[in-house]
Amino acid sequence: MADNEIFAELNPPPRLMMGPGPVNVSPRVLNAMSMPLLGQFDPAFTGYMNEVMTLYRQIFQTANQWTFLIDGTARAGIETALVSILEPGDTVLVPVFGRFGHLLTEIAERCQAKVELIETEWGTVFDPGQIEEAAKRTRPKLVAMCQGDTSTTVAQPLAEIGDICQRYDALSYIDSTASIVGMDLPVDAWKLDIVSAGLQKCLAGPPGSAPITFNDRVADIINARKHIEKGIRPDGFQAASGRTIASNYFDLSMLMDYWSETRLNHHTEATSILYAARECARIVLQEGLNETSARHALASRAMVAGLQAMGLKIFGDLENKMPNVTGVHIPDGVDSEAIRSDMLNDFGIEIGTSFGPLHGKIWRIGAMGYNCQKHNILTCLNALETTLRLHKVGVPSGEAVDAAIAEYRAAGQ
Amino acid sequence: MADNEIFAELNPPPRLMMGPGPVNVSPRVLNAMSMPLLGQFDPAFTGYMNEVMTLYRQIFQTANQWTFLIDGTARAGIETALVSILEPGDTVLVPVFGRFGHLLTEIAERCQAKVELIETEWGTVFDPGQIEEAAKRTRPKLVAMCQGDTSTTVAQPLAEIGDICQRYDALSYIDSTASIVGMDLPVDAWKLDIVSAGLQKCLAGPPGSAPITFNDRVADIINARKHIEKGIRPDGFQAASGRTIASNYFDLSMLMDYWSETRLNHHTEATSILYAARECARIVLQEGLNETSARHALASRAMVAGLQAMGLKIFGDLENKMPNVTGVHIPDGVDSEAIRSDMLNDFGIEIGTSFGPLHGKIWRIGAMGYNCQKHNILTCLNALETTLRLHKVGVPSGEAVDAAIAEYRAAGQ
Repeated sequence: MADNEIFAELNPPPRLMMGPGPVNVSPRVLNAMSMPLLGQFDPAFTGYMNEVMTLYRQIFQTANQWTFLIDGTARAGIETALVSILEPGDTVLVPVFGRFGHLLTEIAERCQAKVELIETEWGTVFDPGQIEEAAKRTRPKLVAMCQGDTSTTVAQPLAEIGDICQRYDALSYIDSTASIVGMDLPVDAWKLDIVSAGLQKCLAGPPGSAPITFNDRVADIINARKHIEKGIRPDGFQAASGRTIASNYFDLSMLMDYWSETRLNHHTEATSILYAARECARIVLQEGLNETSARHALASRAMVAGLQAMGLKIFGDLENKMPNVTGVHIPDGVDSEAIRSDMLNDFGIEIGTSFGPLHGKIWRIGAMGYNCQKHNILTCLNALETTLRLHKVGVPSGEAVDAAIAEYRAAGQ
Repeated sequence: MADNEIFAELNPPPRLMMGPGPVNVSPRVLNAMSMPLLGQFDPAFTGYMNEVMTLYRQIFQTANQWTFLIDGTARAGIETALVSILEPGDTVLVPVFGRFGHLLTEIAERCQAKVELIETEWGTVFDPGQIEEAAKRTRPKLVAMCQGDTSTTVAQPLAEIGDICQRYDALSYIDSTASIVGMDLPVDAWKLDIVSAGLQKCLAGPPGSAPITFNDRVADIINARKHIEKGIRPDGFQAASGRTIASNYFDLSMLMDYWSETRLNHHTEATSILYAARECARIVLQEGLNETSARHALASRAMVAGLQAMGLKIFGDLENKMPNVTGVHIPDGVDSEAIRSDMLNDFGIEIGTSFGPLHGKIWRIGAMGYNCQKHNILTCLNALETTLRLHKVGVPSGEAVDAAIAEYRAAGQ
């Protein structure tokens, strides 16, 4: 039998989470999650579902009716998009510029799609012409890519992608988990067909919900595969002629019925996380989308200036750097895990390690969502300076924080 | 563009949720969800992950190492189990006694399994001999069924199922979402191979997390399909020769790496919901598994006695009735939705409607988890009596609540 242990009361130690996410959640969002539940078909709850749809239309800058939440982490949103669109044998083009691009190829392969992959060195992005050339050559049903890939700390410019896809009759899917509201993503203006996200980065929420939006082009493709499960199927319902979507949980055709006035039962919406998602969006919209992304951009300038003043080298294409995460080369001869561990134990500050080819080569320092505030940037720089000094890395004293403050002062803060 | 609306502060109306779930969450669980986040590889957080594994081993009464959470609602746990085990062409036997049995067939079909289905009338359960006969005839790889199916309010006796499956070399999967801790489910003693659950019924938590447990027979099958995604694949890793699992998000082989000392990144664990799941288990284990199921059984006797005293007829096989939900025939000529709506508007009490063949024929009244307390049973019965009276249904005055109190008094409460 199992051990007979009940453990102590939950009491998480205080952390300043300056990694690539998740980050500290806004106290307003924590509060929202402690609110009493409602039944899933309670008019008060379906009202909240409708409000969430309206709020995320604003977050995604879209008029798409189909804008709602997937009940799972950001990766669940990615899988929902891909499995609902891709059928075995479909071609999908994936421009890969980091680990999360590989994740898209991985999920697409599990959908039995034919994956056409183009790659660029980690830390760089594609010229839109390269994507156009690949689309012309491979004629994909779908072009799938990330906006920002935290594994490399760079973001792909996307303004031309929608047009490119339309020229070659492809749909576009964007994983905006790492970038949403940290940088601009006008879904309609950029003619993007389907976009998913997560709460746990710049939206200042917990992992566990994946906002998604898609237009009628996508809805038509999905409805051509519509199938309703036995036990709740309305009398006379005829399944569509298209191939049934391989997942029930991620079947967007049934999720559309759940999130519209049809209100056909599917999963049971994750009430507390929906409350969180609602509050995340309200906080951003109260601040303003432009103001939120400007706050992230300023923090990025301050973090970069501070790290450079410490004599450290920033990783990747600075012109296309994500504002909410900064890659920094680990100085030669430094025990990178010891630094991270000391930062955590001495200062309660978490910074990130790296994946794949960058493992042991760069740290990733995030400032996003609720954490993206001046005092956190300054606190983190001072702590890193102290920790490096204690590890006998020669760093100039006080220059990092001064450089960061100078960026804030220049912005009038 | 989207409407420009930010809406009011979250302020859910108070409800007593006496439907088939979700139900009111324990305030301790609401509190847990408002605790600060931790990074997913923070030692404090991986410590909590390990504690969750130990706690749910006790909930499932198992020594299975592989006992953890799936980040999605209960249905995500079902899909995880089926998609990780079933390959195209595999035979799965599904004894269906309600809507959630049909859900199992539906998900299994999407895995391209060959579904062998046996059915029994809604409101009844199978004799184990019927399941044995079907297993002998169909020789399935997997027998998949629910313990309790809230759609019909009855529960299938399972004590012999593990033995039957072993006799015919089949694995057993049980969906215990609706029954876990409301009734006994000794996973090891009953030789069940893989079992999933949800938080939102008798565990008194929110929807959004699906505890799962499975033994080494299942782990071996899954590891024979092991595949690690590009971008985080360790040097030299060779994928197993078995067919890759069709879902990335629900791939138990990668989830085992995430939930063990390998700590290979997969999704980002849904921190706040993990906190909730931890607290749900602690509350039940502090009360005791036997005491928790006895509390549900007593509430069931009181609810049945009360409804019968009101002259209403209970639905389904009373000997195999689920303790946490009661089906009751809607009296002739009554507008069933008007009753539910008045209960909600006048008393703030939610009771359940029904699916499929039972729609419009029975209400489903739940008392589970935190709601499963004497005062809620009595309050609900009084409110239903008043509402029926106002709708001109002849009901004896005060007899329902008296009969329910008598059950509690007989139990010394």
